[in-house]
Amino acid sequence: MKTIYFTASSLDGYIADKNDSLLWLFKNGPTDISFIDEFVATIGSIAMGASTYQWLLDNLNDQPWPYKVPCFVFTHRQFKTIEGADVRFVQGDVVERHEELKKLAGDKNVWLMGGGDLVGQFHDHGLVDEMHIQTVAVFLNDGKKLFNRRTETAFKIKEIRQRGDTCVEVIYNVRG
Amino acid sequence: MKTIYFTASSLDGYIADKNDSLLWLFKNGPTDISFIDEFVATIGSIAMGASTYQWLLDNLNDQPWPYKVPCFVFTHRQFKTIEGADVRFVQGDVVERHEELKKLAGDKNVWLMGGGDLVGQFHDHGLVDEMHIQTVAVFLNDGKKLFNRRTETAFKIKEIRQRGDTCVEVIYNVRG
Repeated sequence: MKTIYFTASSLDGYIADKNDSLLWLFKNGPTDISFIDEFVATIGSIAMGASTYQWLLDNLNDQPWPYKVPCFVFTHRQFKTIEGADVRFVQGDVVERHEELKKLAGDKNVWLMGGGDLVGQFHDHGLVDEMHIQTVAVFLNDGKKLFNRRTETAFKIKEIRQRGDTCVEVIYNVRG
Repeated sequence: MKTIYFTASSLDGYIADKNDSLLWLFKNGPTDISFIDEFVATIGSIAMGASTYQWLLDNLNDQPWPYKVPCFVFTHRQFKTIEGADVRFVQGDVVERHEELKKLAGDKNVWLMGGGDLVGQFHDHGLVDEMHIQTVAVFLNDGKKLFNRRTETAFKIKEIRQRGDTCVEVIYNVRG
């Protein structure tokens, strides 16, 4: 039962470009993305920030909400809800919310979907166990940051996997 | 005979922190750095920007200049020279300078040592063959950029090597 930041990143540490677009990823990322489904199968609850949720809303394109597990959206904004989606709008202390997320996840993992600032808040409290970063060999030069903290001690590598011909996924033990 | 950008980077694409320091790297990078010597043995000439040269000057600590091959420093500044070092201060067109670097390298490779802006200029002219990036599992959040361009087509992975327990080196074919 872990809390995991699982996300794709550019070589320079951006998860979306400066227009909040993920086109760079869809264009250049791995074509076989079955590893994402395998990861999602281990997940019992999800946390994301408002921008990430907004992005998902904008890009559903009439498809149904893709996640079956409870999903916390950390936001002070008002959002529309989605038919059939267990989306809960939350505020406040990430430590308390994390306890709830773990309870909801049961014996499965908690997925921190992003963005970098929300994950930074979890990390400030020592709540992030692993980062699974799929680095796609593109430079964006600007955009939404993968993570917006400075860390002093390096994470330890747990696993390295090539994903297609342009992407390397590294699993880091954040707690050492 | 290739032109190669070989450098260490943080997870968020910085080669030095905002104080131009590499302490983060010496503290957290691989302890066995024999792979660097192996790389240097393939090198016939070196190109670097003024800041990179300044950093080397500041950190020699009375040790001799470490490179035996000709080294171009792209700068308009006045620098002191170093006893026994084949350092040449150059300006102007990177295409012409690159021809000279290749001639000097003979059947060996040209090392683009950095920084990101100089390498960007070489890349603008299609002169970078490979990037060998050693990503150390630290976030710096700010600093000197690994590369300051946006790229549209992903580089192709040629090789992946773990370097110690905190570093992954990926060799990218930049020209596809």
